[in-house]
Amino acid sequence: MIDEVVRFIIEIDKLKAVTRKVKPLGVDRYENPAEHSWQIALLAWSLAPFAAAPVDINRVIKLLLVHDIGEIDTGDTMAFVTEGVAERKQAEREAVGRIFGMAAPHARDEMLDLWVEFEDESTAEARLAHAADRAMPVLLNLANNGQSWREHGITYERVVARVGPQINAGCPALWAHVKSRLDAAQQSGWFGI
Amino acid sequence: MIDEVVRFIIEIDKLKAVTRKVKPLGVDRYENPAEHSWQIALLAWSLAPFAAAPVDINRVIKLLLVHDIGEIDTGDTMAFVTEGVAERKQAEREAVGRIFGMAAPHARDEMLDLWVEFEDESTAEARLAHAADRAMPVLLNLANNGQSWREHGITYERVVARVGPQINAGCPALWAHVKSRLDAAQQSGWFGI
Repeated sequence: MIDEVVRFIIEIDKLKAVTRKVKPLGVDRYENPAEHSWQIALLAWSLAPFAAAPVDINRVIKLLLVHDIGEIDTGDTMAFVTEGVAERKQAEREAVGRIFGMAAPHARDEMLDLWVEFEDESTAEARLAHAADRAMPVLLNLANNGQSWREHGITYERVVARVGPQINAGCPALWAHVKSRLDAAQQSGWFGI
Repeated sequence: MIDEVVRFIIEIDKLKAVTRKVKPLGVDRYENPAEHSWQIALLAWSLAPFAAAPVDINRVIKLLLVHDIGEIDTGDTMAFVTEGVAERKQAEREAVGRIFGMAAPHARDEMLDLWVEFEDESTAEARLAHAADRAMPVLLNLANNGQSWREHGITYERVVARVGPQINAGCPALWAHVKSRLDAAQQSGWFGI
């Protein structure tokens, strides 16, 4: 019913208050997962012809619209933290159970299934979605003098190891582009050592 | 090519710096059209079974992802300003010509066509998209003690006249919900007089 739809859409408003590690260009605040999800939906849409395998772009977009909603309860988990991954994933799984449980009946299972599909990375759609999700903060950092890498003392090797496999699995041409620019950024001294 | 995709996605990052009139709940900043677009894509998706006519929800979502991109050049046009509408629409049309012209070739025409479809309101998809777009700031205000209505001295009658026809045309059940809550908010004195 409409009451459920409204409660759900007000609940997910909280995602706008979660902070990520990268700043939008020219803005002195950290971006949030809501605007990030919008941007990577458009990135994946733009990348569709370059995907590693043919994709249903509508499902890729839906995957990306829901993929970060668990962060309402867990917060953004820094992409470069490697400890406690299983615990964080479990907490996020519980969060989406709670939040998608508030959605209208027709959307509840669909949204949860899409969230699981994204996490599992077992479809071409989920792989393109991950490529867009991993690439976007790197593209922003490349346009931003390495802002979040500098703030956290992140090394070139760590970035390549963290984002390379997933970008390459979903969109090899995008990884070729990103890798060559990361190499140039390393020459410019934008990374920790 | 990938270079074009990257230039486009960096260009549209600017939408995160545009400010609307409503604040996200519990956050002391104005929301931007990027996070707003994400939220109303999820709202429309949730509303699909209640739409005035059957819709292709994937196209509704795409309409909403692109509908505000012209505001990168024009800024958000206050929903309650009634003067200069034709001039603002013309400026926004020029803006999307410029911005979607930067998109990858396969996406360029599709995005521009979707933007025009949204503006024309001639399809069931565009009407549901408009219903979500008009309803969301009202739902936030209803959850926020009428924050943007109070800041701008907006009257109850103005809100009803501004959002009612489009919400009702796209999703009558949503309008019934919103209208009854607006009536209650008027009793609570949240509007200008």
